[in-house]
Amino acid sequence: MQVKHVHYSTIEAKEPEEKGTKDTTIRWLITKEDGARNFAMRMFEIKEGGYTPYHRHDWEHEVFVLEGKGILVVDGVENELNEGDVVFIPPNVPHQFKNPSKRNLRFLCLIPYKD
Amino acid sequence: MQVKHVHYSTIEAKEPEEKGTKDTTIRWLITKEDGARNFAMRMFEIKEGGYTPYHRHDWEHEVFVLEGKGILVVDGVENELNEGDVVFIPPNVPHQFKNPSKRNLRFLCLIPYKD
Repeated sequence: MQVKHVHYSTIEAKEPEEKGTKDTTIRWLITKEDGARNFAMRMFEIKEGGYTPYHRHDWEHEVFVLEGKGILVVDGVENELNEGDVVFIPPNVPHQFKNPSKRNLRFLCLIPYKD
Repeated sequence: MQVKHVHYSTIEAKEPEEKGTKDTTIRWLITKEDGARNFAMRMFEIKEGGYTPYHRHDWEHEVFVLEGKGILVVDGVENELNEGDVVFIPPNVPHQFKNPSKRNLRFLCLIPYKD
C-alpha cells in the first residue's frame, strides 16, 4: 500500500451525490481507493446561502472547521460554527450545515467505513 | 449520546505519552470518551526544531496540515509538508514528522480504534 501525499486542491470538488444540498461541494480526500479501510476524510465547501440537507443516518461525523463561519443545526437547534471548531455528531442525530455568511465555509467531515 | 461542539483551543495540549518526541504537543479532540467508536481525531503541534519519533505501527494515519511547514519522513525519504496537505500513511510504514521551520507546524492526525 502506498503513502498518499497531495495538496487538497488537487482533488476534484464534486457536487455531493445526496440530494438536498445547495452551493456545496465535496472533496473525497482519503478513501478506500487509497487503502483506507476504517474511515474516510472528506472536505466540504459551502458558499454563501448554501446548505446540506437536514438529515440523520446511523453513522457518526467527526468535523473540523478549517475556514469561514456557518450554522450547524442539531436536533432543530442552531449553533454558530467558527474556524477551529471541533464537532462530533453521534449516529442518528439530525443535523444540517448552513452558510449564511459571505465567506465560504470549509470543513473536514470524516465518516467510518462500515462492513 | 451527546453532540460535542467545542473550539480546539479549549482542549488541553499534552505531552505525547510515547517517548521520542521533542517540542511536540497532542490534543485529543474526539475520542471514545465522546462516544466515537471507530476513530479518534487528534491535533499535533510541533515547535521549531521539534519532531515525533521515527516509528512504525500496524494502524494507519489520516493527516491534514492546518498550519506551518515541516518535513514528513516516510521510509527514510524526506517530503516537504505544507498547509493544506493531505497524507494517508498506511499501516506499518515507518514515518516521522519534523519541524525545521520557525513557525509552529499544526496538523490533524486521525487513527482508527481497533477492537
